[in-house]
Amino acid sequence: MPPKLLTHLLLALVAVSGAAAARRHPAPANFTASGNPVYIWPLPKNFTSGTQTLAVDPDLALDPQGAGAGAAAVAEAFERYRHLIFSPWAHAARPASAGYDVARLTVVVASADETLELGVDESYTIYIAAAGGANSIVGGATIEANTIYGAIRGLETFSQLCVFNYDTKNVEVRYAPWYIQDEPRFAFRGLMLDTSRHYLPVDVIKQVIDSMSFSKLNVLHWHIIDEQSFPLEIPSYPNLWKGSYSKSERYTVEDARYIVSYAKKRGIHVMAEIDVPGHVKQWLDERNMTTKDAYKYFVLKAQEIAIDLNWIPVNWEETFNSFGGSLNPRTVVHNWLGPGVCPKVVAKGLRCIMSNQGVWYLDHLDVPWEEVYTAEPLAGINDSAQQKLVLGGEVCMWGETADTSDVQQTIWPRAAAAAERMWSQLEAISAQDLETTVLARLHYFRCLLNHRGIAAAPVTNFYARRPPIGPGSCFVQ
Amino acid sequence: MPPKLLTHLLLALVAVSGAAAARRHPAPANFTASGNPVYIWPLPKNFTSGTQTLAVDPDLALDPQGAGAGAAAVAEAFERYRHLIFSPWAHAARPASAGYDVARLTVVVASADETLELGVDESYTIYIAAAGGANSIVGGATIEANTIYGAIRGLETFSQLCVFNYDTKNVEVRYAPWYIQDEPRFAFRGLMLDTSRHYLPVDVIKQVIDSMSFSKLNVLHWHIIDEQSFPLEIPSYPNLWKGSYSKSERYTVEDARYIVSYAKKRGIHVMAEIDVPGHVKQWLDERNMTTKDAYKYFVLKAQEIAIDLNWIPVNWEETFNSFGGSLNPRTVVHNWLGPGVCPKVVAKGLRCIMSNQGVWYLDHLDVPWEEVYTAEPLAGINDSAQQKLVLGGEVCMWGETADTSDVQQTIWPRAAAAAERMWSQLEAISAQDLETTVLARLHYFRCLLNHRGIAAAPVTNFYARRPPIGPGSCFVQ
Repeated sequence: MPPKLLTHLLLALVAVSGAAAARRHPAPANFTASGNPVYIWPLPKNFTSGTQTLAVDPDLALDPQGAGAGAAAVAEAFERYRHLIFSPWAHAARPASAGYDVARLTVVVASADETLELGVDESYTIYIAAAGGANSIVGGATIEANTIYGAIRGLETFSQLCVFNYDTKNVEVRYAPWYIQDEPRFAFRGLMLDTSRHYLPVDVIKQVIDSMSFSKLNVLHWHIIDEQSFPLEIPSYPNLWKGSYSKSERYTVEDARYIVSYAKKRGIHVMAEIDVPGHVKQWLDERNMTTKDAYKYFVLKAQEIAIDLNWIPVNWEETFNSFGGSLNPRTVVHNWLGPGVCPKVVAKGLRCIMSNQGVWYLDHLDVPWEEVYTAEPLAGINDSAQQKLVLGGEVCMWGETADTSDVQQTIWPRAAAAAERMWSQLEAISAQDLETTVLARLHYFRCLLNHRGIAAAPVTNFYARRPPIGPGSCFVQ
Repeated sequence: MPPKLLTHLLLALVAVSGAAAARRHPAPANFTASGNPVYIWPLPKNFTSGTQTLAVDPDLALDPQGAGAGAAAVAEAFERYRHLIFSPWAHAARPASAGYDVARLTVVVASADETLELGVDESYTIYIAAAGGANSIVGGATIEANTIYGAIRGLETFSQLCVFNYDTKNVEVRYAPWYIQDEPRFAFRGLMLDTSRHYLPVDVIKQVIDSMSFSKLNVLHWHIIDEQSFPLEIPSYPNLWKGSYSKSERYTVEDARYIVSYAKKRGIHVMAEIDVPGHVKQWLDERNMTTKDAYKYFVLKAQEIAIDLNWIPVNWEETFNSFGGSLNPRTVVHNWLGPGVCPKVVAKGLRCIMSNQGVWYLDHLDVPWEEVYTAEPLAGINDSAQQKLVLGGEVCMWGETADTSDVQQTIWPRAAAAAERMWSQLEAISAQDLETTVLARLHYFRCLLNHRGIAAAPVTNFYARRPPIGPGSCFVQ
């Protein structure tokens, strides 16, 4: 990096400690140097901004650098984001320009390892400046990351900085030069999708995955089946998917593989959940077991199999509540019943994921965005070693009343509130006056989702997924 | 056409007259020869079907024939539909097949004239049969049309006949051989979209246009501006779009042109409506005119300008109600206030479009699909010359409570009910027992929209755009 960057890095550190000190006032970390809200969602860890406006070349070129940047996944991600940034304006009259400030995006990826697993390095650095500007030696835009997944997160941030100017008809980066250093607070930032209560077509799941990547969520917990329907093809048990709602509300095994691969290209891990039918009556009698015994036996056996496969067993919290002492120490306990569970889990040395239904069940329509936003996975955990056992959290989209017609509307924008909670630094998102420090940014992100074709609902309706109450701008509804 | 086709044509005519005779019973025209509902929406004019299942080659090739089929619009439409038919299954394991029954789609377009205007010929014929089958001499699939717009309608119908079989993992045409001869009952089949009460991003308008083409609607009445916001760039009056909600809730003049061109490729005409601010006070005083005089003067002057440009003036019905006798005879009166207006309009020799708000205003959420479906533009008009003056109708999506989050959900599936009313033959859609004759087909079309990524709401909810009331199959909700 050019030496001048040191100044920016220092400024960034000052900005963050400033935010920490001013926690009870509007957080400076949410604003640019010139006092405007930072319209990046979720908020990056450290950043500095300026006052320049840079024009971005519609023919923006990728310049891949480092051992990992030659990966097909990087080129594909670059094309996706180039499309998101420019294609809505491709038909606009191209201004007769004296040249663009940003004509090339350098993407540096240090590692060629494309493994996507829990805790994968998602950190990245972005630097955007005019060539020959007072604040830099080299111009253009650079994303640096250790892994392709960090680069993908950086591309999302870069895309959010690129804004179409209806007067000049240029795509511009405002408040440049930008220096951003970013990484998530939690390794597990999930969304659960339920395709048993209502079947969701593959194209709809793909759109949900796209939208997850826009807010940097990284785990799709796919609750594929439940007692209502069994839509998944299991080649070794070809009768199972006869339990689908109809012959066309089904996923082939190739669909499932395709979804996993589609998600991986967006840095999203698919955690598949397949419930198992329970018919163990005769077997129980022979062993003199109760159903409760059988449940415990089954869970522990399944854990054993998972661990043999080098998988991580994730259990809904009932197993912890019933026989926590018997769980394998590698178990991750998935909270849902209420608050205060993760503190007990981590006190026992087990890992925890927070999905407290009172705040992070998206089918609870009476939870306003502020309550989603302020739900803190580390609440009640003060010991820093125990804090490290909280992997993150997950918002859950149970499908009883969510089908293709309304699933995106129910997920967004509230899932975005949780996404910032899980990605961004605690100090920067802890201001008490959310109306002043967060709301304008969340409105902006909801409008960005709409602009990208995602049917995110108005932010401030008292009940989620309600229609707008009257005419008005997207930015205030 | 091969001689054997005569038999099919004859059968088709028999089927239709059978339907006419059985109008008070479940209409046979809605069912295949083997008694299954015909899952084509809207229902074609004449058709015959069989009992064979044909496998369609994923590498289906286009064979363009005739003076018009070489048009780029035909090749583009073929690619769009090939994508819709095959891309969701592109990753499925390709069965080791002994060959496909349909490997080529011949598209014959007689005319090279690509003009899209009111009354353009949208008729088409489809023939699909196995090669060497008992019922045909040649095999494969053929669409014949006089214009590219007829060919585009035929491609939509063809795409609806192509269904993925989850057991064989082939795309198949069931109940072949098919012979379909089709054309619309009305020339004007519109949807009004309001981008003033809520701005809709260009990508959302494109998706609405796509969805219109799925139900063969052919006019997008774009109510671009109103008193709430003025989002459109008018280059000669650059201050006007400063009346947009925000600097980014705007359409450039290139956006508008692009939308017109995007729609045209799908056989959809854009009828743009731009309301004009009224500041005529001093001018009125000088001429000793009342505001009512001025309204009349303005309307008649605007008509004169439109007719000089060889445009057709379309007026909301207030002009007819206030000074119907003064309207230019080329005027089309657009009904909205209530029923019974078109009979009065056509009795005066003027043309009419039906949008009776009690049934075809989509923002009226308490109108169930049956009432939308049974609203007949020719109601109360018995004279056949007067019937010809009814151009068709339009469903209106006023935007007070419809934005990106819920606009598709509010439009669909009810707009589809109106679309079939306007396209299909009166005899075939007039059965009184809609539950038996139509509902299964409408459910199916709603699920097709969902499958194509359109957020169409459940069909049978009492209020429109409500979420599903509980778990269940798309085909029954």
